[in-house]
Amino acid sequence: MVAPAAARLSLNTATTRKQWNLAQAIEGCARHDIAGIAPWRDQLHTMGVDRAAQAIRAHGLTVTGLCRGGMFTGVDLAARQTAIQDNLRALEEAHALQARCLILVAGGLPTGSKDVAGARAQVREGIARILPAARQARVPLAIEPLHPMYAADRACINTLAQALDVCDAVDPLGEGGIGVAVDVYHVWWDPNLQRDIARAGARRLLAFHLCDWLVPTTDLLNDRGMMGDGVIALPLIRSWMEAAGYDGLHEVEIFSNRWWKVDPDLVLQTCKERHTAYC
Amino acid sequence: MVAPAAARLSLNTATTRKQWNLAQAIEGCARHDIAGIAPWRDQLHTMGVDRAAQAIRAHGLTVTGLCRGGMFTGVDLAARQTAIQDNLRALEEAHALQARCLILVAGGLPTGSKDVAGARAQVREGIARILPAARQARVPLAIEPLHPMYAADRACINTLAQALDVCDAVDPLGEGGIGVAVDVYHVWWDPNLQRDIARAGARRLLAFHLCDWLVPTTDLLNDRGMMGDGVIALPLIRSWMEAAGYDGLHEVEIFSNRWWKVDPDLVLQTCKERHTAYC
Repeated sequence: MVAPAAARLSLNTATTRKQWNLAQAIEGCARHDIAGIAPWRDQLHTMGVDRAAQAIRAHGLTVTGLCRGGMFTGVDLAARQTAIQDNLRALEEAHALQARCLILVAGGLPTGSKDVAGARAQVREGIARILPAARQARVPLAIEPLHPMYAADRACINTLAQALDVCDAVDPLGEGGIGVAVDVYHVWWDPNLQRDIARAGARRLLAFHLCDWLVPTTDLLNDRGMMGDGVIALPLIRSWMEAAGYDGLHEVEIFSNRWWKVDPDLVLQTCKERHTAYC
Repeated sequence: MVAPAAARLSLNTATTRKQWNLAQAIEGCARHDIAGIAPWRDQLHTMGVDRAAQAIRAHGLTVTGLCRGGMFTGVDLAARQTAIQDNLRALEEAHALQARCLILVAGGLPTGSKDVAGARAQVREGIARILPAARQARVPLAIEPLHPMYAADRACINTLAQALDVCDAVDPLGEGGIGVAVDVYHVWWDPNLQRDIARAGARRLLAFHLCDWLVPTTDLLNDRGMMGDGVIALPLIRSWMEAAGYDGLHEVEIFSNRWWKVDPDLVLQTCKERHTAYC
């Protein structure tokens, strides 16, 4: 019998990326009765897409998202075209995995640029370019707003409102194929979070990522916390997601120098316990 | 003759806090023809308020702000009352210095709390409590929205829109004594920045702080950049400030382990050169 908490859980493999390759992560999820998995493409390519798809299917795992597409900004048209091509390949991979969405991390400022509005325009254009392919592949695009501390170098889409504005811009008629990924780490501080989760609604809420914000946070990249160790009101945000109609899995994604040193079976066990206790 | 750039400049003494005490910073500003200064209260108390006020007056410096009041959030009423008392003392000091404003850093989550909405309500209440004293002292309160990466431990007011909502809440009739400090480091990423600077308007734009956002940023606290070394479109933001009617000084505030190791006379010289070239 699958425990209730694990039945709602998905493992983003970034959480165990230093300890496990993708095959091991798939088996780990199966062993711990974790219902879903979200692979990263580097590990996916190492394992091979077909082999990964087969292993994931064999264990009955839901692929809550493929990480990641995006990175649409570039210093010139050639760089941006290369990004488009890579996103189209990512969509094929996501289709092969029957992923619930392709996670899009927008991209930051092109090297040498200080034009954040221009970068944002590039992101809108890039998403508009790949949206038809996403619809054809039946893999919706999930724009993940990243914390403003990543605006310069990773993603210039930094609030849920901004991500939803992009959705509205590229899908004005609500035909679908586009939505958002809500990662508590990136959006917990946003005073408009409840309003914008409601604005997104069930159709555009494609993924829900869990971790925690530690105090103090000692590293901008790899000091995310295990649920319960930080200050994020996880049950409150979950209640907003559910009130808006989200009924998908809860994906744990923890970039953490600390947890990358821990036995990955213990990491998964802890994720399950913390999910039950704190989410 | 005062150079044009220096005539628009103010030195926030955090920029040289490891090298100079307040008396030295005041003399440094005078020596470099920098028109303004923004002292921190720890250095002010060490020098003595009267002595500092006298030295600042003797050199004809404008005090662009006193750093800082705020920190309104607390685990209980007693802690919050202590904060109110400290803010009232800060207003007296700011009055003695003829400061253009008292900078308010809101305060983060009380220890053990995950209730960011509750913390924000405490900030609103605290500001409402001290506003009459600020009006009486003729020292306007400048709410400084801090970057969302400080939401947990320093300031739960994280966007200009939020700060302006607090202004509207505590000053619904526009009687004044309350406004905002725009620090480019905290707000440059905000997609609504231009709109909200215009919304603030001249009456509520009380201070303008300059530095730069480095890529990569290696420390959440003390890795701010010298103007021109990062990615912030400083002239663009300045143009929005001026279009909204701001005509005050430009205050350089750089928390930087790197610049704290540099000869402070060279720091001030560099601030002047970079202000001319990049702002």
